Amino acid sequence: MNGNALDRLVILFSKLPGVGKKSAGRIAYHILDSNPSFAATLANELFGLHKAIRKCGVCGGYTEADPCSVCCDPKRDTSIICVIESAQDIRIIEEGKEFSGVYHVLGGLIAPLDGVSPANLSIDKLINRLRDKNVKELILALNPTVEGDTTALYLQKTLKDYPVIISRLASGMPVGGNIEYIDKLTLSRSFRGRVRI
Amino acid sequence: MNGNALDRLVILFSKLPGVGKKSAGRIAYHILDSNPSFAATLANELFGLHKAIRKCGVCGGYTEADPCSVCCDPKRDTSIICVIESAQDIRIIEEGKEFSGVYHVLGGLIAPLDGVSPANLSIDKLINRLRDKNVKELILALNPTVEGDTTALYLQKTLKDYPVIISRLASGMPVGGNIEYIDKLTLSRSFRGRVRI
Repeated sequence: MNGNALDRLVILFSKLPGVGKKSAGRIAYHILDSNPSFAATLANELFGLHKAIRKCGVCGGYTEADPCSVCCDPKRDTSIICVIESAQDIRIIEEGKEFSGVYHVLGGLIAPLDGVSPANLSIDKLINRLRDKNVKELILALNPTVEGDTTALYLQKTLKDYPVIISRLASGMPVGGNIEYIDKLTLSRSFRGRVRI
Repeated sequence: MNGNALDRLVILFSKLPGVGKKSAGRIAYHILDSNPSFAATLANELFGLHKAIRKCGVCGGYTEADPCSVCCDPKRDTSIICVIESAQDIRIIEEGKEFSGVYHVLGGLIAPLDGVSPANLSIDKLINRLRDKNVKELILALNPTVEGDTTALYLQKTLKDYPVIISRLASGMPVGGNIEYIDKLTLSRSFRGRVRI
């Protein structure tokens, strides 16, 4: 029972986000129990992944064609740019079907303790987009965390001379949430951000 | 943002056990953000998996060499066979370091509704092992579910003429559990299986 190839696969899977040692074992055995064609297909996709996918030269999202389909789409409103931490956020926001503008991936959030300074983020490129194009609004869709707040504040100060509205996603109680279980900070933000009805 | 190679990878990952659509997305983006060598290593392991790993001819567990390391180990007590549903259970029981006998993988549990009959399980092979070798005890390490109970009962009846002790793993309250939250069936089993102290 020390199938080394199996152990190596379990170790690799356990390095993936959200996959613990037990889940990695389950996944590896599942693949072993499945038709070998599944493993081969997955292996092929993994081999081709980095060749097929590049970063969009405009927004920084992952794409097969550069610029990406969002940046190329004539129906998208290029006057509104949604500023996000990582390329993955595009997928999540697109699934919500709420936003019809374009994106800009920062590639991280300012976090001095982790060694991430504004220079590490794609902020110059964002300023170029503000200069070149007729951008009216920047929506900062950054996590309501210390890093997200810091980055939002930094962008607000840096971009204050550009004729652009800067907004940030509302922070407060999630839909279906319960006041009883909400943390103090979220409750405080909900009060401060209350809306007239 | 319709990177097709990425979408295909997300769909493949979401087919793995315990990986939902969101987790699959996180995993795919994590691999994309990581060094391409990680994807290549994972792909290589997946390609080689089914070639490297086979089933042990004795116990049915997954192994690189046949018979497997447990069946070949002279320190293991071959007079006690632990009967399990799937090869994956060997890994879990071995991690517990409680059992020093050998294994027998049934390859499933009797489940008429899912079309699994005794003929689909590796029961003939188990009987052969009882005939050939000096086996004193069979420990049925089957899940305490309807299918596990059915399979245990079937094995008990089928093997009643063999001079072998058949036991089953204790079923009851898990360590650290709370009587308040335990389900009725488990509580009932805990009462019936109570031990004198």
